[in-house]
Amino acid sequence: MITGKYSDSMIYKRHSIRKFTSTPLKQEDLEHILHSAMAGPSANNYQPWSFVIIDDRALLDGINQIHPYAGMMKSAPLAIVACVVRDTAKSDLFYQQDLGAAIENMLLAAVECGLGSCWCAIHPNARLEKDFADLLKIPDTIFPFAVVAFGYPAETKLASDRFDPSRVQRNSW
Amino acid sequence: MITGKYSDSMIYKRHSIRKFTSTPLKQEDLEHILHSAMAGPSANNYQPWSFVIIDDRALLDGINQIHPYAGMMKSAPLAIVACVVRDTAKSDLFYQQDLGAAIENMLLAAVECGLGSCWCAIHPNARLEKDFADLLKIPDTIFPFAVVAFGYPAETKLASDRFDPSRVQRNSW
Repeated sequence: MITGKYSDSMIYKRHSIRKFTSTPLKQEDLEHILHSAMAGPSANNYQPWSFVIIDDRALLDGINQIHPYAGMMKSAPLAIVACVVRDTAKSDLFYQQDLGAAIENMLLAAVECGLGSCWCAIHPNARLEKDFADLLKIPDTIFPFAVVAFGYPAETKLASDRFDPSRVQRNSW
Repeated sequence: MITGKYSDSMIYKRHSIRKFTSTPLKQEDLEHILHSAMAGPSANNYQPWSFVIIDDRALLDGINQIHPYAGMMKSAPLAIVACVVRDTAKSDLFYQQDLGAAIENMLLAAVECGLGSCWCAIHPNARLEKDFADLLKIPDTIFPFAVVAFGYPAETKLASDRFDPSRVQRNSW
């Protein structure tokens, strides 16, 4: 249970939602999610990302078939596949962190829109990367990193507080 | 320039701030930042993170000496070193993404508190990891991943929109 001045923060309202209504996303909400992704920080400002919007039912079902934990795609009206641009080669060291931040921005933008979301990892699972590249005809210059389902929630989750004081030190051991 | 319904989102107000006033953080703001970090999603909910609060001036100056891009530590009243817990070994594949999301949550929580922040990468630079581990006497069970400076901004940055429509595809190529 989160209490205090910041208890209403959207950061605490983000949950993995796995059941969605069939209502499609509004265009301005989709745009906010994509702008938010690209508003994220990246090492040396390389912006190593690229995104594929999926709202074709056959492709959403195809994602469910190739990803072992993507059952929520059955009800999701839309997904976004976050990809890495290979030729941002100098960013190789940090692209995973950069993508993690960009994806978290998308999840929080979704909260602002009243939407739910669920992040399913792809990279660095080589088989999943190939299966997604085949399904979406992703060119060799790009590789799929993660897929996020979006939609209006058809399940309710309560705010939870995972804060663990044993994970915090001050100044040094 | 961000326009429209979501232009006031804190996601668009996050910038890398490199000059801070000497005013210390409020305790409730520091708590919000740490709770936000641990509110982030993680693969299999492994929560592979651990955090070190640094508000000792000698240590902040020490960080500036060992990290080539951490000049902002000279004015920052506080930093948080985000670390990875090695024995969350099963999360090895995804810990970088998990930490990226947790750090982005800290940066956005800082915006909610009226604070600025700057994320400096450590991992996977082995030399930096060793230097930070030595400086902070980090035990072998944990390794440093990134350091983030926090404080009240002493510089102003305007909202910028890095949205690039060429980075978005729909359904497939």
